[in-house]
Amino acid sequence: MASHVAGPEIERLVQLLARLPGLGPRSARRAALHLIKKREELLGPLGEAMQVAYQRILTCSVCGNIDTIDPCTICQDTRRDPGILLIVETVSDLWALERARLMPARYHVLGGVLSPLDGVGPDDINIARLLDRVREGQAGERNVREAILAVNATVDGQTTAHYIADLLAPLGVKTTRLAHGVPVGGELDYLDEGTLAAALERRTAF
Amino acid sequence: MASHVAGPEIERLVQLLARLPGLGPRSARRAALHLIKKREELLGPLGEAMQVAYQRILTCSVCGNIDTIDPCTICQDTRRDPGILLIVETVSDLWALERARLMPARYHVLGGVLSPLDGVGPDDINIARLLDRVREGQAGERNVREAILAVNATVDGQTTAHYIADLLAPLGVKTTRLAHGVPVGGELDYLDEGTLAAALERRTAF
Repeated sequence: MASHVAGPEIERLVQLLARLPGLGPRSARRAALHLIKKREELLGPLGEAMQVAYQRILTCSVCGNIDTIDPCTICQDTRRDPGILLIVETVSDLWALERARLMPARYHVLGGVLSPLDGVGPDDINIARLLDRVREGQAGERNVREAILAVNATVDGQTTAHYIADLLAPLGVKTTRLAHGVPVGGELDYLDEGTLAAALERRTAF
Repeated sequence: MASHVAGPEIERLVQLLARLPGLGPRSARRAALHLIKKREELLGPLGEAMQVAYQRILTCSVCGNIDTIDPCTICQDTRRDPGILLIVETVSDLWALERARLMPARYHVLGGVLSPLDGVGPDDINIARLLDRVREGQAGERNVREAILAVNATVDGQTTAHYIADLLAPLGVKTTRLAHGVPVGGELDYLDEGTLAAALERRTAF
């Protein structure tokens, strides 16, 4: 009942906006009014951008990334080393690594993690395609030398990492994972015991 | 540089989403990925709702409310008393009063408040139309008996209220404003001195 006095079109706009993550009913109403106020600069262009995205965005058949071309921009980028695969849970993890501009590698997006409690098994995430990719690479030029398991440091993330590492082992791929430790800029006082233990255990020479 | 690896269409979607109030660059990326994930249920419908809103929403020529018809749904609602005008700053204030379902009255949306510091004068907000409305009402059936200044309890809001009250006085309209006091459910400890002073001064019999 956000805007029942303003016609069903506005009501519908508010209800759909409220389904975006980070927006509740109140901020959805604010967003709708802001859009209507900025009709030419924002409402029109955003509506169009959404329709373009709706029509054109697809999932890369090679790595699981999203793009408007298939294979995606990253998979088609010949400057990237096809020998290193960063295995991530989600596209937003891929974006996070790309923003950091660390490594001109390729990716493989799992689209989730194994989670027995939520009924997510190996067939529900993009693992089979990963193994195909590694096997195909061994036959051709795109031999995968290293698979970096860049998954979240959660229980499900680590379970998934172990599962994938076991599958990759017989294929002769070097499998690594991200280091644990104190975040740069982090204060010890705020860190959990597991992180402190990992940081101490894997201490390095000064 | 939110999603420069995912094609200009996604980049543009993220950039436009980041211009919504309450969404920063990070939550705009999250929202974009959520939209793409919920392509059929959310991305398509929301894009369409925005285009419909873009094409059809207009400002009511009588009261300044937004709607897809002119005069708006409220101005056309014959069950509402045309003799009582709730004067509000913004459409979101109108929505807030409507959600509370307090009074089947009419509205007048100023679209802002007088603010000398920001260069907002009487001609920049919807005051002239208010006076016309009151004068037209006196000539016909829609005589305005009471104008309730339901503006914010800010300095600019109160300045605007005084300015309008002075203009309405010679027209013989009863002009009132919202009461000050302790918000229902509010704790005294968290209230400012002005509110406490108003609540004490205007105390009522138990």
